Amino acid sequence: MSQPASSSISAESISELTRDTNYGTWRFQKGWKPLHVVDAEGCWFTDDAGKRYLDMSSQLMCVNLGHKNPRVIESIAEQARELPFMGPAYATNARARLSAKLLELLPAGLEKFFFTTSGTDANEAAFKIARMVTGKNKIISRYRSYHGSTAASIAATGDLRRWAMEPAGKGMGFVFAPETNCYKCPIGHTYPGCNIACADYIDHMIRNEGDVAAVLVEPIVGTNGVLIPPPEYLPKLREICDRHSVLLIADEVMTGWGRTGKWFAVDHWNVKPDILTTAKGITSAYVPLGLCATTKKLADYFEDRYFSHGHTYEAHPITLGPAVATIEEMQRLALVERAAEMEPYLRERLEGLKTKHVSIGDVHGIGLFFAVELVKNRTTKEPFNTMRDKVEGKPLVVDQIAAKMMADGVAQQSWVSHFVIAPPLIVTKEELDFGIDALDRHLAIADALAVQS
Amino acid sequence: MSQPASSSISAESISELTRDTNYGTWRFQKGWKPLHVVDAEGCWFTDDAGKRYLDMSSQLMCVNLGHKNPRVIESIAEQARELPFMGPAYATNARARLSAKLLELLPAGLEKFFFTTSGTDANEAAFKIARMVTGKNKIISRYRSYHGSTAASIAATGDLRRWAMEPAGKGMGFVFAPETNCYKCPIGHTYPGCNIACADYIDHMIRNEGDVAAVLVEPIVGTNGVLIPPPEYLPKLREICDRHSVLLIADEVMTGWGRTGKWFAVDHWNVKPDILTTAKGITSAYVPLGLCATTKKLADYFEDRYFSHGHTYEAHPITLGPAVATIEEMQRLALVERAAEMEPYLRERLEGLKTKHVSIGDVHGIGLFFAVELVKNRTTKEPFNTMRDKVEGKPLVVDQIAAKMMADGVAQQSWVSHFVIAPPLIVTKEELDFGIDALDRHLAIADALAVQS
Repeated sequence: MSQPASSSISAESISELTRDTNYGTWRFQKGWKPLHVVDAEGCWFTDDAGKRYLDMSSQLMCVNLGHKNPRVIESIAEQARELPFMGPAYATNARARLSAKLLELLPAGLEKFFFTTSGTDANEAAFKIARMVTGKNKIISRYRSYHGSTAASIAATGDLRRWAMEPAGKGMGFVFAPETNCYKCPIGHTYPGCNIACADYIDHMIRNEGDVAAVLVEPIVGTNGVLIPPPEYLPKLREICDRHSVLLIADEVMTGWGRTGKWFAVDHWNVKPDILTTAKGITSAYVPLGLCATTKKLADYFEDRYFSHGHTYEAHPITLGPAVATIEEMQRLALVERAAEMEPYLRERLEGLKTKHVSIGDVHGIGLFFAVELVKNRTTKEPFNTMRDKVEGKPLVVDQIAAKMMADGVAQQSWVSHFVIAPPLIVTKEELDFGIDALDRHLAIADALAVQS
Repeated sequence: MSQPASSSISAESISELTRDTNYGTWRFQKGWKPLHVVDAEGCWFTDDAGKRYLDMSSQLMCVNLGHKNPRVIESIAEQARELPFMGPAYATNARARLSAKLLELLPAGLEKFFFTTSGTDANEAAFKIARMVTGKNKIISRYRSYHGSTAASIAATGDLRRWAMEPAGKGMGFVFAPETNCYKCPIGHTYPGCNIACADYIDHMIRNEGDVAAVLVEPIVGTNGVLIPPPEYLPKLREICDRHSVLLIADEVMTGWGRTGKWFAVDHWNVKPDILTTAKGITSAYVPLGLCATTKKLADYFEDRYFSHGHTYEAHPITLGPAVATIEEMQRLALVERAAEMEPYLRERLEGLKTKHVSIGDVHGIGLFFAVELVKNRTTKEPFNTMRDKVEGKPLVVDQIAAKMMADGVAQQSWVSHFVIAPPLIVTKEELDFGIDALDRHLAIADALAVQS
């Protein structure tokens, strides 16, 4: 076997080669200098110079178990040795074991599974199922949501990343309701006097749109700001959907698997969606797996009809076995409970920052899932930047702060005008302090630009 | 750690549990009894009763290396131990190594990579890139094609599986050209007297559609019948696209990675697409990886513009490292060359069947990629079944034959009215004989229904 050229790449050139040959995503290509990461463990990862970084956002809010959990790593090796792949027509041990595990943990009633390799594909399946079963076309989504980047998922996305694919995304049947944001209500109310008018407005939309197959929500909005709905919202939405025989789809790609202190975000309000989609935490991202889970009632529709969907890599064994190991590790380490236990400390620390930094407009979160929202002006709640600035490549205040934190060894996700604090669920108080102290140090950049109150 | 319930599932109940809790895809749910597969090796897999099956279609035309190649299995374990996951913002050893490997092997000019977890997602990326760069919306695809099941990919699909998502798929900008099928020309010609009128018609479509971003082709149509274009077709299409400044997208999800006796199908005619998508053989399906490769020119468009696309599991290390190992194994075993070498024997055997069985209308293929097309009547070329029969759940003649072959230990992909013969590239003549002899035995079912000539 001749020595392949690709194994002789010098360590120094890895970043450069990656930059030269790969697309940098959700960004301008100019200025992308991908850090060369060589190792990771627990809440930390290490670059090629040996510098360590605290992973304050679990990469993309997905490595819930932390990096390089030995049991999950071993489960990947075991699955590879047992049976790395069979096509979706076949039953495998891994497929049955994960299915049984899901029956134990998913919200009651979700008993039929379609396994994908990503969250966006799980949502694509959900939309197809909802449309095929109901025979209706429209799906109500909400502004300031994110549901994925393939054609239907990006058309369902409320944030401005949807724009890049219009007009191709037009006519796909997604219509948008106001997001639920009690810090800055898009329909001008104040909780609790509002009587959850944002849910009632969806009732109004269903009546006026007609042809509505489903309502799609992130139960807690993720990337766009960790927006927690008031407690009445989801139960009310469930009741509205039932009244109109419209399906409720919960996108738990980011909020599932302990992130919020429950297995799933809907569990906080005991709401049962007709379809739940998830990915990320289901394997802690070690292997690419997504899931679209539905009620048996929806699946039964296809007993005598063609289920017109599928993937080559659907129910891929190398993704299913390690998912079982991930979930068992979460149970063994009681990480769902741990996320709930750590919430008060994280909240206290972030509220502490808010008293100190005039640029923090609001702090909101649940479990180990918080947003720190920056504003120019606490009275008007005007953000430093908008998503439009981001898409147009303007420098963002949050990115400047995140760059300073990175230099201090803290990898902190920044988005438009907020930070998403979402470390692995194994994070310690000392690690939280290390990350939050870095944020504390560099918020001066934003404070200097804010209206002093 | 308590013994998880899911590990105590009895071997007997694996199939039943899978059927009860999982969607069976591209089919009616009724009648799905997924065979429980416990092991696989080389060209064979084994069920829970110890019965072995020859994999005559490499699962879904993807396990090109054969099952359980030890070096690829070891590469999965190694990658899991080195670094199972980092988000797409980072450079990793696996990402750089695979990128370097691709520069060696892809058709010249394809130098920028976007890694997905499936072929459908690779196509979704291709469509977005083509639309964003050109600012145009329409994409010309062809009837009797398959490009994936997510919203844009299924809207781009020429076969009838597209119908299930219309009207949601309407307005997505895909328009359809005639497929290239010299056995049964959809525009009524006979090669070579036709002067490749099917390519000229695409020129006509571009002029009359306007707003065309790209032409999308499977260089050799896969699932829908291994349709080989005449040698002039793709060079002519390339010239037409160039003349109109329209991009040419080659979907090599199935045809890439040695299946046709070249690394890529376009290599047979030395055609350089602007975008090439692939999946399946890139890892022999051991791990779920897709690729959208473009010219540098297309990528450069995004130097100063927002590249509005990305996935959490993009450039996922656990998929990239094993891809390098897969490609190195293909090189070590000279499997691309082997596919070309085996072609004459496979063709001879299948042509032999044709002389013997009146139900075979045509045999066409290249490398280790052949279709055996059944007809009721050799004169009219009328098939036994149409895709409409399949979607409506009518019993198909090809499926009856495939079921008999399965009972004989040969897993043979059947589709509408043809079989796709596409075993792992390591297949021996003896194994080919074993599979083809089973087909030979059961073609009597079709012969009895055919018009005797």
